[in-house]
Parts: sequence; structure tokens; C-alpha cells
Amino acid sequence: MTIFEYENDIVILDMGLQFPEENMPGIDYIIPNIKYLEGKEKNVKGVIFSHGHLDHIGAAPILLKKLGYPPVIGLPLTIEMIKHRVEDYSRNDLKLLKVLQVKSLKDKIKLGKFTAGFFQVEHSIMDSVGTTLETPLGTIIHAGDWTMEREEDGSTHVKYTQLKDVKRPSVLMLESLGAIKQGRHATHKELYDNLISIIQKAKGRVIIATFGSQVERVKWVITAAGELGKRVALDGYSMKKNIELASKLGYIKPDKKTMIDIHKSEDYPDDKVVIVCTGAQGEENAALNRIVSGQHRTIKLKKTDTVIFSSSVIPGNERTIQRIKDNIYRQADHVIHGDLMDVHVSGHATRQDIIDMIDQTKPDYYMPVYANHFFLKEAKWLAEEQGFNSNKIFVPDNGSVFELSSKGLTLRKEKVPTEYVFVDGLGVSDSQHVVLRDRQVLAEEGMIVVITTVDSHTGQLVQNPDIISRGFVFLKDNKQLIEDVRKKVKKMVVESDPKTWADTDQIRNDIRDKIGQFIFSKTEKRPMVLPVVIRV
Amino acid sequence: MTIFEYENDIVILDMGLQFPEENMPGIDYIIPNIKYLEGKEKNVKGVIFSHGHLDHIGAAPILLKKLGYPPVIGLPLTIEMIKHRVEDYSRNDLKLLKVLQVKSLKDKIKLGKFTAGFFQVEHSIMDSVGTTLETPLGTIIHAGDWTMEREEDGSTHVKYTQLKDVKRPSVLMLESLGAIKQGRHATHKELYDNLISIIQKAKGRVIIATFGSQVERVKWVITAAGELGKRVALDGYSMKKNIELASKLGYIKPDKKTMIDIHKSEDYPDDKVVIVCTGAQGEENAALNRIVSGQHRTIKLKKTDTVIFSSSVIPGNERTIQRIKDNIYRQADHVIHGDLMDVHVSGHATRQDIIDMIDQTKPDYYMPVYANHFFLKEAKWLAEEQGFNSNKIFVPDNGSVFELSSKGLTLRKEKVPTEYVFVDGLGVSDSQHVVLRDRQVLAEEGMIVVITTVDSHTGQLVQNPDIISRGFVFLKDNKQLIEDVRKKVKKMVVESDPKTWADTDQIRNDIRDKIGQFIFSKTEKRPMVLPVVIRV
Repeated sequence: MTIFEYENDIVILDMGLQFPEENMPGIDYIIPNIKYLEGKEKNVKGVIFSHGHLDHIGAAPILLKKLGYPPVIGLPLTIEMIKHRVEDYSRNDLKLLKVLQVKSLKDKIKLGKFTAGFFQVEHSIMDSVGTTLETPLGTIIHAGDWTMEREEDGSTHVKYTQLKDVKRPSVLMLESLGAIKQGRHATHKELYDNLISIIQKAKGRVIIATFGSQVERVKWVITAAGELGKRVALDGYSMKKNIELASKLGYIKPDKKTMIDIHKSEDYPDDKVVIVCTGAQGEENAALNRIVSGQHRTIKLKKTDTVIFSSSVIPGNERTIQRIKDNIYRQADHVIHGDLMDVHVSGHATRQDIIDMIDQTKPDYYMPVYANHFFLKEAKWLAEEQGFNSNKIFVPDNGSVFELSSKGLTLRKEKVPTEYVFVDGLGVSDSQHVVLRDRQVLAEEGMIVVITTVDSHTGQLVQNPDIISRGFVFLKDNKQLIEDVRKKVKKMVVESDPKTWADTDQIRNDIRDKIGQFIFSKTEKRPMVLPVVIRV
Repeated sequence: MTIFEYENDIVILDMGLQFPEENMPGIDYIIPNIKYLEGKEKNVKGVIFSHGHLDHIGAAPILLKKLGYPPVIGLPLTIEMIKHRVEDYSRNDLKLLKVLQVKSLKDKIKLGKFTAGFFQVEHSIMDSVGTTLETPLGTIIHAGDWTMEREEDGSTHVKYTQLKDVKRPSVLMLESLGAIKQGRHATHKELYDNLISIIQKAKGRVIIATFGSQVERVKWVITAAGELGKRVALDGYSMKKNIELASKLGYIKPDKKTMIDIHKSEDYPDDKVVIVCTGAQGEENAALNRIVSGQHRTIKLKKTDTVIFSSSVIPGNERTIQRIKDNIYRQADHVIHGDLMDVHVSGHATRQDIIDMIDQTKPDYYMPVYANHFFLKEAKWLAEEQGFNSNKIFVPDNGSVFELSSKGLTLRKEKVPTEYVFVDGLGVSDSQHVVLRDRQVLAEEGMIVVITTVDSHTGQLVQNPDIISRGFVFLKDNKQLIEDVRKKVKKMVVESDPKTWADTDQIRNDIRDKIGQFIFSKTEKRPMVLPVVIRV
């Protein structure tokens, strides 16, 4: 999410979600922190969405609501996907959504002092768009997520030279995930030819796993299968929904005969069936995992199936994908993935694309964005190597504030709040860190609850201490350890002088410390020790 | 770990450890299950170790002890590393270790009915070795971990044609991690030239992060720095220990002036200092992370430093590495990693290497091993493409049993036990699954302990229920929820009829179910509910 502000007018670009990191167990996802906008809700003249992927629209239902539903701006598929997500999150809010749909790339939309314009970009979903934001002081050019599709001779489909002519000074904000990507992508023709060839040769079913949001790719498969007279069945909630939305808008026009219901696929010969499903990242509940683990209602893997992984691996998912691949290779004799054949088109630019984009738009300032910091720095170094003035390249951090004035672009000293805001079940909170720390201790070491019941007058133990433990050691194998803990607690309570207890804090702290030490000496584990003293 | 058995003689190859998967929180590592050897300990004539990496020797201290210290067989550095590990694990056991050191690759060692022979292989640590195991029925050829070093013209340093002449039939067991690795590795000369060029050009310090076990690579750095008149400081316990062992054996002979203490590195000009440290995988406690996070005793990153990542990424560590890279790029202006320059030599073979190895050894049977199942299958398909008889290729699974008899090699129906054996603190156990399930629930959803104290005669509540929760919700933001839970419990106990309680199980189950449902309806979380009923 990026916020643009000019006097009392604010324009926002994208409201994405981030998936949790490995030290955030139980968190569903993370959304942008909008504390900076508190009290300025009325100033927000519009929210522009560059395209419909979750890392660009996923936080929209929560954040639009918090901001009192400012107008949303985007191309048709993007808008449909936002509507669907808002409806999914809270059905009654759909009527509150205000939409300014971009009908043509020539549209200009006034948003207070800003004038938004648009330009074509290529990405792995239809209706991806770049934005220009003209202000009285200059123009921001933001490409959203983008790549440059090329022919084998290197020529590109789209040119960006018109962006040289925006009101100056111009600031090019450029998604730079491909800053260390050398070489060229396979051309669309190469990829499509690969796909056709695999689907044609397959003597059994073809099962293609990809993201639910890779709408372009699914369209190719539908087209290729249609050409070859094969049927296509889709599986996975998000994929079916996205293809339905894209079809409604006329972006996909499959032959009526081509599309079949997944549960009817057994009615056709195997070599006439292509299944496209979600789960190429190994997601536990996605269609592919259900098929591979034998839990799918109708589809079981067969030796003769050809399984295609058509997606790049999201960092963090490597081991899960290795496990699912192992399971597929055990069951099917034809597996195809990007390592040995180009079956995936990346939606992100390469180093050469970044060089060409800068060269074609000739901005006054270059700001690599939308990637890990180390990619941004590599993009900066790349531009410097090409002769771009290094004083006019700015690498932002989360929360950085830049000012465009008559003096040009400068980094301001202050930062806006960017603490993670966690979505955890129904809770949305930026004070989840304590809970996460506890979860990590519980996960690594487990916990042990020690309950002692004492007579409130005499301080004498009323009964044997209760010990409950989970996630610590296997109790059946460690009866003696638990018994030793019980004895130790008993001894501590009996020996402590109840008359000195101001409250039960002291004995509880004692139990926590000493039992903790005792357990560590026996096991080298540090479970969370939770002492409870009940006075009756 | 592989077990070879002929009548009453057993030979074991390698005793490695496996690092825990992401759904195994708190587990230190996993070791091979040796239930099959119970009662056969006396039959074990020797344990051969192919090389000194942890995934080949890491379980040795535990398993050798369990087996009553059968003789260990290996080349000098491997043996030194095992000794060090046994000593680290339990100092007094070092004297129990029996060693049969391989003095020359021409050695033949009789191990009952087996005769072990050895052959040279290339890998990223000195003293890696391949093994032949001759039996009255034929010969096993096992390459351990291996690669083929080549010149630019593709010629290899080592030839394996002599392995054609082993007693037939022969079974080639071949580590096949590179089964989908196309193209060629950079040559050693290219890598060394890159390294020299980077170290020479650096205007500040050079900091090279790698594995502690990549002894060959560290040797190169020491040689290169020495040639350029720069000093080398090592950091990281395992690296320092391994280089010490390799130096003791004469494998590394640095100029006395070259090696300096890390804490003295500030005494030299920055452009004369090369630091080699552990932590290229982003490991939390390793030297690199301490340097990057500002927690290192003497080394702080400077803008002028050149940081080199000289190691491939182990699947599962990608996000951690991205985070550490972000932090390095924030602090240093020169970062070099494998994506843009060859600074890492892989210790594993490519597809072409596998093809050449099979071609040179011409085995009767081929068994790809030591990799994920999907790599093994790819290796099988690769050999088939080359014309290897597919009936003579066997892809083993964990626990598979093969029999070599006069009929040739066959897969037997039975499997030996392979349940994971977990090392968790001081505990070594194969019944940790319950504990791990609990840990996962605790990590994802947290827990809530509900303690009710009732009068054992009347069943009346003696005092308000106590509620303790950890890892569930942030309590300060959720006081009302906790109060509601307390009220609900109170009502349940008051309304239940204590006279019907055979024991407290019923009310505990009730509390678990109803409070669980109530919490889910309010939060969409399912924390572990632990009801405790105390009768006084």
C-alpha cells in the first residue's frame, strides 16, 4: 500500500495482504498499518488498485471499511475481484462500496488535486494497469506488478515511451522483484507450444496445478485444450471464482463443450481430460493436496497421469512442495515442472526489463519498490551501472516518507507507523506480539501447569499438587519426571512459611523458577511453567 | 544410513542426522531408526562413514553407543570429526570408540563376509570416499555424496572405469540430488578466479559466509587471501573446529602470518581483512547473524564491507535468508551471492555427471539414493532415457529391503521400521508424535486453562473459576471475552447436578466442549481448552 498526499487530498494505491512468516504461528495474514490515516479518513479521495492479486487487494475489505468506503478505482476484473472479496468478508457491506471503474486507458480521473491516468502493463492476470498521478508539482509513474513480454528477437509488445511526456519532474516507482533475474523469460509462444505439446502427447489425464489467481495461464490451458479437442475441469474455490468473473467479463470464452464439471471427469476417456487446480504451493487444503493425499471426492492419481506444476515457488514453501512432489512421483509416472521445462510464465520483470523501462520512460527520479529491501538495492545498483544519477535514486523502506517539492524529491526524517497488523481468526490487532511470543515458546518447549491448593488460613497443602503438561514430553515415557516435579512442588509449599505470604505471588514465582530449573537440568527443555495457587 | 547384511554379518554405511521439518517445533534433529538392529548388535562388523558432513555422521554418537561401539571406518578427517562429535556428546565415551582408519584407497578391509574397498570421489569436504562392498554374491558400489569436477572442455579429474571390474553382478547406489540439475557447474578455476578477483578489488573488509562444514571452500579462501597478502579470521564454533582438525592433518597449511584472531581484526587495515564465518543459511545463533544484528563482540558491518554468500540455500531456509540479506544490504554496499556470480561450488552431481558415472561403471543394477523420492524417480527416468534397462533400476523408499541373490536384485515385500526418532533436548524418542501434535495446536491457537474449585460434598463452586490463557488472544484487548468465559463456566457448574458425577470427567468434558464452541463462535480460533476441576 502506498499513500500519496497533496495538501488535504489523499490517494492510495493498492491494499494488499502479506502471508505470515514462520515465526507467526496461527496468524491468517498481515495487513497494512493505517494509523497514519486516523483522522484523515475524509481526505481519502480514492483507492486505485493495480490488479486483482491478493497481495494488492487482499486487505481491501478490512481497510476500506475502516476508512469509511472511499471510492475504489480499477479495471473491470480487478473491481469484480474486490467486490467478491468484500462480499465474502461481510455480505452487507457490498452496497457501501463506491466504484469508479476505469473504462479506457485514456480515462483521466480527478481525485482532489491529483489527476490519475493509466497505462498498459503486462502481468499474469488480466486488467493489470500502471498509474500516473499528476500533481501541481510533478508526476508519479507507478507500474504496479509488471513484466515485459518479448519475442525471441527481444522486441517487446508494449512500449512506454509516452511516459516521457508526463508533467515533470517525474518519479518512476517500479516493482523490482526481478532485480537479480538475468537472461530472458521464455516467450509466450514457447510456453504455449510447450503446453500444447504436453497436452497433446499425454496418454492419460493432464493435471495442471497453479495459483487460483493466475487467470491468464488458466485461459491458455482452456484455449490449448479446446484446440486439441480435450475437456477442462477446474477445481479450487478461488480458481473457479476467478475464472467465473473473467468469463462474465468476456475475457475467457471457452467452447461450451470444453468446460466440464470435475465430478463428471470420469465420464470421459482419460486422454481427453485436463484438470486445472489450485495448490501448486502445496497448500494443505487446496485441490492438488486433496488429490495427492487421496482425499479428493472424485479424482485419484493414476500412473498414467501427467502432472504439471505451473507456478514458481514462493519462498518459504520449498519443503512443502518437495513433500507433495515426492507423493506425486510415487503415484504418477509423468511429472513436469519448471526445473526441466518452461511451463511457467513469470509475471515479473527481469534486469533487462528494468533497464528498458527506465530507458523508455526517462524519469527524473527512480524509486524501486514492491520487493524485499535487497532486491531494491540491487535495482538501484543496476540503474547506477546504466548511468542513472545515484543521487536521484531513492530506496524506500516500509514507512519512509518522501516529499516532492520545487527542490525535487527528498527523503523526510519522519516515518509513518508500520507495525504489523495481524488478522488472527476474527481478530485484527497490532498488539499480537506478546501472544506470538507465547505461541513460539509453547511450540518449541510446551508447557506445564502446576496447581497447588492450600488452606488459606494455615497455608497447608490441601491435596497433592496437580500437574498438567502439553507439548513438553511424552507423559507415558516420563512418569517419573512428573512425579519428581510433583514432589518438588509439595516440598516447596510445605517448607515455605505461609505466614510470610503477602499474597501468592511469592510462592508462584518460586515454583516457576525452581521447577523451571529442575526441568531444564533433567531435559534441557524450558517449557512454560504456569503455577496456579488456589486458596480455599 | 544404509544397512548391508550377509548371513550373520552386518555392515552399516553412514549415520546421519536430518534437520526437523517445519511441523516439528522444538525438535533438535531426527536420527535413523535402528529397531531392525535390536538383538543383532553383535553382528555389526563395522560402520563405514563416507565423509564428515552432519547428514552422514551426525547421529553417530547416539547410534554407536546404542550398538555397543562397533568399529568405525573412514578416512582421517572423517574419523577426526566423528571423534570430536562423540566427545562433544559424552566425553567419557571417546575411549570406547574403535577405529579402523583407511590409510590408502587401496586398502581392503574384511568385515565378516564383506570386503570393503574404496575409491576417490569429489565433494565439498576433504576425505570424501566411495565404497565397494564385495560379498560372495556380488558387489555394491556406493559413491557417498559426490560430484564430478570438470575442466572447461568438460573433461573430468577422476575416472571411475575401474569400477567396471568389480565382482559381478554389481549394484551402483548413487546419490542423485542433482537429478534435475542441467548444464555444468562452474569449474574450480572459474570459482577461484572469481574469489581472487573479489578479494583483490575489495576496498574494505571481505566477509564470506558459508557452512562450517565446507572445509574445501574455506581452504580456498585462506589460499587466495594468503596469495593477496590479506589476513583471514575465522568465526563460528563448527568452522573453527573443522579447520583446526583439517590443519592438524596437514590438509590446510596456511602461512603463519595469514591467520588472525577475529577479535584482533580491527588491528589491521580493512582492505587487508577477510572474515570467513558460519551462518549463510541465516541460522539464528551463527556468526553472520550476530554480525548483522549488531550483537557480535567485535565485528560491526560497515558500508565498505563486501559480504559474500558462498553456499546454496537449503530448502526451507529461503525466507530467513531473504531477511538476513535485507539487513546486510541496509548496512553494506557490496553484497555478492550465487544469483549474480559463481561464488559457490556445489558438492553434488549434475545430470551429465550421473550419465557419465553410470557409463563409466557399467553396473548391472542402478539404484539412485540419498535424495527426495522425486529426485530418485527423475534419476531413474534419466537412466532409462540413456538406454539403461528399466527392470534393472530400483528406486528405494525409506525402509525398503532388497535382496541380491543368484536371481539378481529383487525388492522384498517386508519393510524395516523407519518411524522418525526425535532428539528433543536430552530425550531420544520415537513416540514424540502426540507431543508434536499438541505443540502445533498450541502454536496455532494457543491454550486456555479453566480451573474450577468445587466442594466435594455439595458440588458447589467454592470460588470463581480461574482462567489462564497463553498464545490465544491478547488479554488486555479481550477482557470481556475472558469474563464471558468465566461466567459461562460458573453457570455450567452451578447448573450441573453434582450428585450425578461419577467423577469429574463429565463436567470437564462439558467445559471443554461448550467453552471450545463458545470461543470459536466469538473468535474463530480453537485454542486447546484444559479444564481442571479441584474438589476440596
